[in-house]
Amino acid sequence: MPEGELPWRTIRLTVAYDGTDFHGWMYLPGIRTVQGVLQEAVGKVIPGETVRLVGSSRTDAGVHAVGQVAAFWTRSQIPAEVFPRAINAYLPEDVRVIQAQEASPTFHPIQDAVRKRYRYLLHDGAYPEIFYRRYVWRLGKSSSRLDVEAMRLAAEYLVGTHDFASFENVGSPRKDTVRTIYSLEVRRGEGLSTEGLPRMGGDDDLISIDVEGNGFLYNMVRNIAGTLMEVGRRKFSPDGMKEVLESKRRAAAGMTAPPQGLFLLWIQMRGEEASSS
Amino acid sequence: MPEGELPWRTIRLTVAYDGTDFHGWMYLPGIRTVQGVLQEAVGKVIPGETVRLVGSSRTDAGVHAVGQVAAFWTRSQIPAEVFPRAINAYLPEDVRVIQAQEASPTFHPIQDAVRKRYRYLLHDGAYPEIFYRRYVWRLGKSSSRLDVEAMRLAAEYLVGTHDFASFENVGSPRKDTVRTIYSLEVRRGEGLSTEGLPRMGGDDDLISIDVEGNGFLYNMVRNIAGTLMEVGRRKFSPDGMKEVLESKRRAAAGMTAPPQGLFLLWIQMRGEEASSS
Repeated sequence: MPEGELPWRTIRLTVAYDGTDFHGWMYLPGIRTVQGVLQEAVGKVIPGETVRLVGSSRTDAGVHAVGQVAAFWTRSQIPAEVFPRAINAYLPEDVRVIQAQEASPTFHPIQDAVRKRYRYLLHDGAYPEIFYRRYVWRLGKSSSRLDVEAMRLAAEYLVGTHDFASFENVGSPRKDTVRTIYSLEVRRGEGLSTEGLPRMGGDDDLISIDVEGNGFLYNMVRNIAGTLMEVGRRKFSPDGMKEVLESKRRAAAGMTAPPQGLFLLWIQMRGEEASSS
Repeated sequence: MPEGELPWRTIRLTVAYDGTDFHGWMYLPGIRTVQGVLQEAVGKVIPGETVRLVGSSRTDAGVHAVGQVAAFWTRSQIPAEVFPRAINAYLPEDVRVIQAQEASPTFHPIQDAVRKRYRYLLHDGAYPEIFYRRYVWRLGKSSSRLDVEAMRLAAEYLVGTHDFASFENVGSPRKDTVRTIYSLEVRRGEGLSTEGLPRMGGDDDLISIDVEGNGFLYNMVRNIAGTLMEVGRRKFSPDGMKEVLESKRRAAAGMTAPPQGLFLLWIQMRGEEASSS
C-alpha cells in the first residue's frame, strides 16, 4: 500500500429488518431497499468514502430478516464495536444493525455462506390476529385447518441432498439446482397467548416451517412453504412430495407462498460456528 | 313508531386494532382515528343512515385493542352476523371487526362496561426485537434487568378497592377516583422463540403486566406500568407502592408508560360472562 494510506478493513454486519415497507434487499436507485438504506447510513458514519456494501441473501420485497449478514470495506479507524450504534443512529426503526465485527480481508458474504436457516409462518385460525398481520401468511377463515402431520411426512422427502429444480422460480436461474436441506421442521405453535403479543384466536393458530440448508434457489423456501400448505390442505398427499421433487418441473410443485411469512433467521459463514435460532 | 318505519336496532361490535397509526379511538375531524375510520366503514354498509357509533374505551393514540366494544344504531335489516365481513371490506387492515351481535335497545358500551382487562408489554433485553417494536416499551440496553419479583410484590398493594388518584393523569378527571382492581399479574415471558415470531434476544426479554378491574382512570394503566417499571429498576421499593397509593398525589407515582406497550384485551358488559384473554 502507498505510504500514508491506511489499509482496507472488512467489516462484517449482522442485520435485522422488518421487510414490510422495503422493496427487498437489493439496491435500486430511488426505491426504498434495505441495501440502499443501509449503504446510505454507513456512508454517514464514514464520510468521504464511497460505500460498497454486500449482503449474503438478496431477500425479496416483504421478506424479513433476523440475521442477514452483510459486509462493507473501509479505511476508517472506527473500532468495529462502535459501528452498530453509529449506523443505527442513521437508520429507520425497521432496520437495525445487531452486530459488527472485523473480518478477514478475504471474507465475502455471498461466497462464504455455508448454511442458512429460514422460518415461514402460516396462520389458519378464524381471527385476523391484527398484530401478526405483517408477519404471517393468513389462510383465512374459509379453509379448514392444515393437516400438520401430513406436512411433516411430506417434508421428510425434502431433507437431504436433492435436485430442487421443482422449487426454483424463473427469474434467477442457477446452473446447479442441487442443494442440501439439513432439517425441515413443521410445527403448530402453542403457548403464545398468555405471554407476549395478545392473540385473538386459539393458541394453535400459527404454523411454523423452519428449514436449514447449504443454500437455496430463487424462491425455494416460499415454494416449499406453498407446496407444504397444499399438502396440509390435502391437495397433495405426503407421498406426492416425492413425485414433485423427482419431476424436476416447477409446475409439479405448489404455489409460491407470499413473502410476508418468510424470515431469514441466520447465516453461518465459513469458519464460524452455527448460530442458534 | 310511525307506520312503515322500521324499529331501531342496537348492534354490538367487538373490534381489534393496531393503534400505531391511529391518533387514538376518539373521532376527530380530518384525523385518522379508529372511531372515525370505523364510522365511515359502517356508513358504507348502511348507506342513507347517519351513523352514530360509540366505543367503550377511549384508547389514546398508539394504544392497541384486541377486544374493544362498540355499538351503533341502525334501522337496516342486515342480519347481525353479516356485519363483520361487510364492515371489514371497507376497513384498512389495521382495524378489524371481530364480532357483531344484536344487543338490547338499552345497551350502552360505556354505561354497561363492568370489567376490563389490559396488558402492558415491556422489553428489557439488549436486542431491538424488530418485529415487536410497535408493541412494546423498549427499555434499552443500558438499563439492567427489571426485578420482576419486586414488581410482583409492589403490584399486590394495588389489588382491591382503592382510591387510585395517584395514578390518574390530568386531562379527563373523574369525580370518583375509587376503583377496584381484581388482579394484577407481572410475568416474564418465556418460550416465545421457538414458535411464532422470531426473536433476536433470549426467551425472557419480554415482561407482561396484566391488569383487570371494574374501570380505570385516565392513563391509570400506563401510570401503574410506569411505576412498576421504576420498582423493577429499584427506584421505588415494593413497599413504596403502598405510600404512593396512600398519598393520592400523582407526583408520588412513577412516570406514564408510553402508549405502544398497551393493549385493551377485553371488556365484560353487564349481563355477559367474562371473556378469557
